[in-house]
Amino acid sequence: MGMIGGGSDAFIGAVHRIAALMDGQIELVCGAFSSKPEKSRTTGEELFLPPDKVYGSYQEMIEKESRLQEGERMDFVSIVTPNHLHFDPAKLALEHGFHVVLDKPMTFDLSEARRLKKLVDETGLVFCLTHTYTGYPMVKEARYLATSGKIGQIRKVYVEYPQGWLSTSLEKTGNKQADWRTYPKRSGMGGALGDIGTHAANLAEYVTGSKITKLCADINAVVAGRVLDDDASMLLKFENGASGVLFATQVAAGEENCIKIRVYGEKGGIEWKQDDANSLVIRWMDQPVEIRRAGGNVGYLSSFALHNTRTPSGHPEGYLEAFANLYRNFTLTVRAKMNGKEPKAEWLDFPGVEDGVRGMLFIEKAVESGKSDQKWVDVGD
Amino acid sequence: MGMIGGGSDAFIGAVHRIAALMDGQIELVCGAFSSKPEKSRTTGEELFLPPDKVYGSYQEMIEKESRLQEGERMDFVSIVTPNHLHFDPAKLALEHGFHVVLDKPMTFDLSEARRLKKLVDETGLVFCLTHTYTGYPMVKEARYLATSGKIGQIRKVYVEYPQGWLSTSLEKTGNKQADWRTYPKRSGMGGALGDIGTHAANLAEYVTGSKITKLCADINAVVAGRVLDDDASMLLKFENGASGVLFATQVAAGEENCIKIRVYGEKGGIEWKQDDANSLVIRWMDQPVEIRRAGGNVGYLSSFALHNTRTPSGHPEGYLEAFANLYRNFTLTVRAKMNGKEPKAEWLDFPGVEDGVRGMLFIEKAVESGKSDQKWVDVGD
Amino acid sequence: MGMIGGGSDAFIGAVHRIAALMDGQIELVCGAFSSKPEKSRTTGEELFLPPDKVYGSYQEMIEKESRLQEGERMDFVSIVTPNHLHFDPAKLALEHGFHVVLDKPMTFDLSEARRLKKLVDETGLVFCLTHTYTGYPMVKEARYLATSGKIGQIRKVYVEYPQGWLSTSLEKTGNKQADWRTYPKRSGMGGALGDIGTHAANLAEYVTGSKITKLCADINAVVAGRVLDDDASMLLKFENGASGVLFATQVAAGEENCIKIRVYGEKGGIEWKQDDANSLVIRWMDQPVEIRRAGGNVGYLSSFALHNTRTPSGHPEGYLEAFANLYRNFTLTVRAKMNGKEPKAEWLDFPGVEDGVRGMLFIEKAVESGKSDQKWVDVGD
Amino acid sequence: MGMIGGGSDAFIGAVHRIAALMDGQIELVCGAFSSKPEKSRTTGEELFLPPDKVYGSYQEMIEKESRLQEGERMDFVSIVTPNHLHFDPAKLALEHGFHVVLDKPMTFDLSEARRLKKLVDETGLVFCLTHTYTGYPMVKEARYLATSGKIGQIRKVYVEYPQGWLSTSLEKTGNKQADWRTYPKRSGMGGALGDIGTHAANLAEYVTGSKITKLCADINAVVAGRVLDDDASMLLKFENGASGVLFATQVAAGEENCIKIRVYGEKGGIEWKQDDANSLVIRWMDQPVEIRRAGGNVGYLSSFALHNTRTPSGHPEGYLEAFANLYRNFTLTVRAKMNGKEPKAEWLDFPGVEDGVRGMLFIEKAVESGKSDQKWVDVGD
Repeated sequence: MGMIGGGSDAFIGAVHRIAALMDGQIELVCGAFSSKPEKSRTTGEELFLPPDKVYGSYQEMIEKESRLQEGERMDFVSIVTPNHLHFDPAKLALEHGFHVVLDKPMTFDLSEARRLKKLVDETGLVFCLTHTYTGYPMVKEARYLATSGKIGQIRKVYVEYPQGWLSTSLEKTGNKQADWRTYPKRSGMGGALGDIGTHAANLAEYVTGSKITKLCADINAVVAGRVLDDDASMLLKFENGASGVLFATQVAAGEENCIKIRVYGEKGGIEWKQDDANSLVIRWMDQPVEIRRAGGNVGYLSSFALHNTRTPSGHPEGYLEAFANLYRNFTLTVRAKMNGKEPKAEWLDFPGVEDGVRGMLFIEKAVESGKSDQKWVDVGD
Repeated sequence: MGMIGGGSDAFIGAVHRIAALMDGQIELVCGAFSSKPEKSRTTGEELFLPPDKVYGSYQEMIEKESRLQEGERMDFVSIVTPNHLHFDPAKLALEHGFHVVLDKPMTFDLSEARRLKKLVDETGLVFCLTHTYTGYPMVKEARYLATSGKIGQIRKVYVEYPQGWLSTSLEKTGNKQADWRTYPKRSGMGGALGDIGTHAANLAEYVTGSKITKLCADINAVVAGRVLDDDASMLLKFENGASGVLFATQVAAGEENCIKIRVYGEKGGIEWKQDDANSLVIRWMDQPVEIRRAGGNVGYLSSFALHNTRTPSGHPEGYLEAFANLYRNFTLTVRAKMNGKEPKAEWLDFPGVEDGVRGMLFIEKAVESGKSDQKWVDVGD
Repeated sequence: MGMIGGGSDAFIGAVHRIAALMDGQIELVCGAFSSKPEKSRTTGEELFLPPDKVYGSYQEMIEKESRLQEGERMDFVSIVTPNHLHFDPAKLALEHGFHVVLDKPMTFDLSEARRLKKLVDETGLVFCLTHTYTGYPMVKEARYLATSGKIGQIRKVYVEYPQGWLSTSLEKTGNKQADWRTYPKRSGMGGALGDIGTHAANLAEYVTGSKITKLCADINAVVAGRVLDDDASMLLKFENGASGVLFATQVAAGEENCIKIRVYGEKGGIEWKQDDANSLVIRWMDQPVEIRRAGGNVGYLSSFALHNTRTPSGHPEGYLEAFANLYRNFTLTVRAKMNGKEPKAEWLDFPGVEDGVRGMLFIEKAVESGKSDQKWVDVGD
Repeated sequence: MGMIGGGSDAFIGAVHRIAALMDGQIELVCGAFSSKPEKSRTTGEELFLPPDKVYGSYQEMIEKESRLQEGERMDFVSIVTPNHLHFDPAKLALEHGFHVVLDKPMTFDLSEARRLKKLVDETGLVFCLTHTYTGYPMVKEARYLATSGKIGQIRKVYVEYPQGWLSTSLEKTGNKQADWRTYPKRSGMGGALGDIGTHAANLAEYVTGSKITKLCADINAVVAGRVLDDDASMLLKFENGASGVLFATQVAAGEENCIKIRVYGEKGGIEWKQDDANSLVIRWMDQPVEIRRAGGNVGYLSSFALHNTRTPSGHPEGYLEAFANLYRNFTLTVRAKMNGKEPKAEWLDFPGVEDGVRGMLFIEKAVESGKSDQKWVDVGD
């Protein structure tokens, strides 16, 4: 793996590295960690990389690595830069034959997203978009239950992502995370919409196996002086006839990061939330509540849930393991392709370029709806 | 107390009686429990009423009781009939000088609600609308925190009321509760909207001390063949500048009755839900989460919370005690008025006729919005 | 019902009255509320009793009432005095033909308990000891599961009752509740042992349907200057071969009143705690966790659980309703006996004089064990 | 790092590798993964080790590696074999100058433990015993609160470790994990006592900063035919005057792995349990309950808690991260020593050889107490 972005003070870069390394199947072999060469260099040192494997720019890295032989060169790139710096390195990597892991939201705007999808489709390379929450085993179990008819035809979907960290003008205090996320030239059209709204929308579409077809949004910049939205609520309609509600806010003061989804079918409902990530609550009509629990030894779980656990039940796995599951499944798929083998369904179960297009569409349509007097906006494909 | 409605197979009539009797301050002295005389009679027997205090109709009860002397006659009526039978008995009782406890939603439609408000205002009699959830001590604590500025200016309000009991066509199976609630001639314009949506809207306005000014609703009759809505979701705007989301559904299969509210201000957020009714969760920026607990011995609670508990902390009080708090405060107010005394602020803290008008307005505007292509509908006063 | 004790500042007297009145099946007709006539009189007034039904002493009440005719006189007495004043009024009531409700622990010492049992057995009168926690519907469901073999042969029992209110020398501040509970002449041999330890032991024996045969106890008076124990922990052996742990403490600073029991059999385990009183958690080998929920509409519950609920699931019932269930079942049994009918099994399911003897035996043996160097003490019968 | 044991079907070996690799600070450079050379070889292949770095025995590995130069050879060994194979490789590693990570319980018996301690003391090498649970940030916060006087002098300690996986004769089904743990020649004197009881005892001593001085134990082999204990309960006395209860059982059918501790001081109590590992509940006298939350951005946490988190609050970290914290702190200490620097207090905060001696003492004394008729057994040093 070669990494683009992720200098030593970046939150998500460190997370990507932990996730990639945890299972002992991926090695960090090179990096272009920052547009500032000095910072890239010191980050490389901290990561025990030899100096010649720390590049001054992603262009240099992709070009030089592509001239090396398989086994010597990196097998894929992981891109963890701010949104406006997603498309170019991804494009260059794909053009040079490298598989790509890319942080979400996929691109700066929808147009870039569609171009990237075209490129992925044409090259046939493996592409992973890190919608972390779909990596949790109990989210996979939720999807299994919702899409296999176990809870009957789906009627209602409620998904929420409350955060509070942008309740004040944090971006004016020098906080780097807050800075780029609230700055349109780096973040794109969406603030909270892009940062966490896309996670919520992706989770809803993943768990239900159904697309959002219409939305009606109330989009706000709550904190004075903020240009991009920090708060979004919307009514949803789904392809399968279900309706629902999504909210994503970064001004719910005191809230941490507890993304949560509830899906109700004719026969029962399922609930998952990150704060109790190893449980899946299933409520049935006229039967006791059922709680399924993550764990490699749990006989009643689906193969998708089991494949994404490392420990027996009662040994809580969390955010980093969910993230690592994306890397693991991506890697298993890459390796299968490199070995000319057919990847298993469980390996292919990671978010890809189509999810990225959906995310950018979601942002654009939500922003459009927020400005409209009409109730419903069609989301399209 | 004299009761109108509440024959032996009615859910809410029994609840009202338990709530009224629990504190030993109210005596059931007469009743017109059913339009069927035989049923009224047997109900009266089961309740140990003398035969001459069980009336064949509410008209008879109100007229005969009004001719008795104070001390012999009932002091107030409690009306627990289906929605279409709220206005007439309430009007007659007020006209005969009786204070009134009335089940929600207040009337069949908004026009009746406004007429009733006029009558209450003119007579100066005490009127209580049983929005049960505002009777919980920790809901009162939530209101105290939200309206006293403790969490800063309010920005976001999320309120939800998920039920699952109407996930099937229960009304076709002879279930009496389901029958009238899904039947427009008895329930009015709203199904879930009237039955539980009004509770959610009332809870939001009570806790925040602010009125809903605009709404944008998605209203559905999810179960095939149902005429009235069984599902509602809406975006909200509040008088104080806050925005929010409300949903109330009776097709969330497997859900019981866990009404829940979250309110976020600039400094922190509060969360209350019925399934953990004796706790109030308060989240702060940069401080530990705080959980306030109900209990008569809890020194840090507001006088409003303390006044509405009967036991020390750790002795859970529930739905029936919350309901009893409405009766208790209503009764304390009635008694103060009868004795020419000024009721305390804590006693006056029960839902009244203005809440009832708000509720009917909420139903009408939500139904209107559900049919509209425009995004926002003004709620008005 | 006539009440002995329960003057207006007594915690448990008010609880008994709410519990008795809630269901509209019991009327408070007379009382001897305090050994101080003035206090008895004012309590009677607050409770709307006619002056001639407020007696100066329990002796007077029992004698005068016994001379009245059935229908005019009280049907039973409820005794809510401190422990040292349990036996005499109970004895007198039984001797005059009155059924008795008595607060726990049953008597001042084991000898009194055995004499009282003899008297109840001889008179054939109905006797209820208010071990409140066995009145919860989900405790009854737990007993049903544990005694019907659903979780297999029972192996382990863990029961705990942590409180914190005696963490300081509250008894020296004039707190009446603390005062008599820490004073040997009023409380008996046990402090925490009598006040809450007996509840825990009773809960364990009730749920498992098996008696404690041996115990090994560590008994402490943690707060300096306290004579009676405020803290007890013990290892247990049961008749059915199970073993377990019980602890009851009043110096777990910050704890409220969350009595909790866990019982494990060969196939699974059950857990109930008062803070989530309407749920019963059942864990199985190799199956999802199951949560049964209280509610009159819950089809899968045992008849014993269903009989002891008043509302549909999701309308939380609490401590006062559990207490009311004792009164309700006692009353149903009394009424059946008065009408010459056979009480149903569900009605007879309330704690009686045998539970009281067990409780006093528990206190004596725990105190004995606390002083002994030997590991196990036999509990006996 | 070189690994001894941990062939591909071993649970704890894989956990050690994930924990060691996660932070990108440790490289697996060699291994002797099994006493069966073929299995060692295939494990090495799966881990991408060059064939010449996969050794046929730990003796061979230690000897050959010790002849290599620093930078080429492993810096430390990680020993993850069954208990009877702990002492010899640890001894050999220390004698050849390697730092050691060793799985718990430390040795086969107390005598080995004392000899190992002597060797560690003499060599001055760094030694880590993997009592995982002390690696959780909120356990460190608990220790900080308990040992800094924040909750006042400690009075009560309740620690429990319920598991259900040995509720049946799993060891007779070919389950390798069950097999050696229930077999005295591999496990030592203790079954559940060694496997999980030592964790519970270590957690209690770590959080309170006080040693267990006396215990009174009930030790059982519940499942028929089992030689070693599968269930233990005991009363405890601590050095600081506190008393408490410990139970550890592997026959609580349905339970997973939820180790939990509660510690009460004069002013308040703290509670931590693995199933909600990122929260620490603190209950105070007369103040709201407080919940501290793990997270690198949480300003109010102690430096010990902060040092042991990787992500902001709301991104749950779990068992593997707790385990990784042991490796991280061990490594930071090793590196500091190699560089001649003084390790920080936060780095030195991992379980060591003294914890291992305490654990073996705990097992021996608990077994002794289980067989004794006397109540208390002194634990000693």
